[in-house]
Amino acid sequence: MINKEVKALIISTSTIYGSDFLEYIREEIKDFTQTDELIFIPFAQPSGINYDDYTEKVKNALQAHEIKVRGIHEFENKKEAIRDAKTIFVGGGNTFLLLKTLYELDLMTTLREAILSGTPYIGTSAGSNLTGQTIGTTNDMPIVYPPSFEALKILPFNLNPHYLEADPNSTHKGETREQRIAEFLIQNDIAVLGLKEGSWLEILEGEITLKGSENAVWFSRKNKERIIESGMRMSSLLQ
Amino acid sequence: MINKEVKALIISTSTIYGSDFLEYIREEIKDFTQTDELIFIPFAQPSGINYDDYTEKVKNALQAHEIKVRGIHEFENKKEAIRDAKTIFVGGGNTFLLLKTLYELDLMTTLREAILSGTPYIGTSAGSNLTGQTIGTTNDMPIVYPPSFEALKILPFNLNPHYLEADPNSTHKGETREQRIAEFLIQNDIAVLGLKEGSWLEILEGEITLKGSENAVWFSRKNKERIIESGMRMSSLLQ
Repeated sequence: MINKEVKALIISTSTIYGSDFLEYIREEIKDFTQTDELIFIPFAQPSGINYDDYTEKVKNALQAHEIKVRGIHEFENKKEAIRDAKTIFVGGGNTFLLLKTLYELDLMTTLREAILSGTPYIGTSAGSNLTGQTIGTTNDMPIVYPPSFEALKILPFNLNPHYLEADPNSTHKGETREQRIAEFLIQNDIAVLGLKEGSWLEILEGEITLKGSENAVWFSRKNKERIIESGMRMSSLLQ
Repeated sequence: MINKEVKALIISTSTIYGSDFLEYIREEIKDFTQTDELIFIPFAQPSGINYDDYTEKVKNALQAHEIKVRGIHEFENKKEAIRDAKTIFVGGGNTFLLLKTLYELDLMTTLREAILSGTPYIGTSAGSNLTGQTIGTTNDMPIVYPPSFEALKILPFNLNPHYLEADPNSTHKGETREQRIAEFLIQNDIAVLGLKEGSWLEILEGEITLKGSENAVWFSRKNKERIIESGMRMSSLLQ
């Protein structure tokens, strides 16, 4: 189901409403990593801020917890940096850009191997999408063309971060999130977890557990839609 | 700027709130096509209804206007069907699926040539995205992987159909439409027109005019954001 070595926090969003960047989740990150050092991968960032600034933001957010942060872009040998990392953190932004950059730098296999051999992994938003089977359920705009939609395949399903239910009062005729995921399922036999802002998955000892303040929604060809309560282990769904 | 032969209606959405499928736009379609026959391309449809049913929906919507509708899937020789068409209508759905199917059937070049040589073209939503430079500003979920994001390049810019402004009261932390388009512009020097539901572009005699009930928003590296009023010709923006 999921490799017993894998340790990961797969987080819907870096920021929740009314709270600073990573503020609501930084205790969790500290407890989880049990290390004072992490490598940050800023490649999803398309908004014009540079890798240094994005890394600085993470550094500042984790400063109080005495976690040292270095950006992967600072390393000449990035594969080695991933192999030697005590913890890897992949930040949010645009999933297409993240995936394209990782493929171009030939880091996908190295990253997957590090995670499967037990290097703790933290992802937010695009960094969480990356751990699924494909990026086919991202909400992002396809601003660049990656050489493939295949992702790290750590999770035996896909994620939809920032999941939200349709507004029953909306007059907008674009597809709802639920419709989009249903359409994905027609084209792909890959289950999808809709992970709301404020939620995350914790992967430890072969078990995936939903954490945080919200429930999540599980979509699959077999089960259609199912609500997952916070605290629930997902093994039963994955059989 | 734009080929003088091109005749097209590039429509944001097939359906507006409180109105049936194509209802608000069918008079316009009738006046524009000035023909009693069109070929419908249903390939964007991912929702589980089949090509026949989707074509039937269009047939019913245009019945009162005595327009005969045939689906492209009914033709053995699809290239010939496109070359011989009196009008071509590409319906909405998923832009990735539409593009992938058209590439797989090797219809992109034929379609582009037909439009550039004066066959009237109608597109809604995904069918409108298709006329831009790339599909890089679609709102759709990437449920399938097309061999390229390159589109028909009839318009000298990209479209964002179903455009809507950010809700100032939203507590959701996913990117707004405006942010997404700004991020596209950092990665691509291609202008983008945000086309709201209820709006369309009419292309006739080398001129592109915004029509319908709403204004539109023009995004480019040069101009940042600019409001386009309904009725405005776009030539001045394209210099």
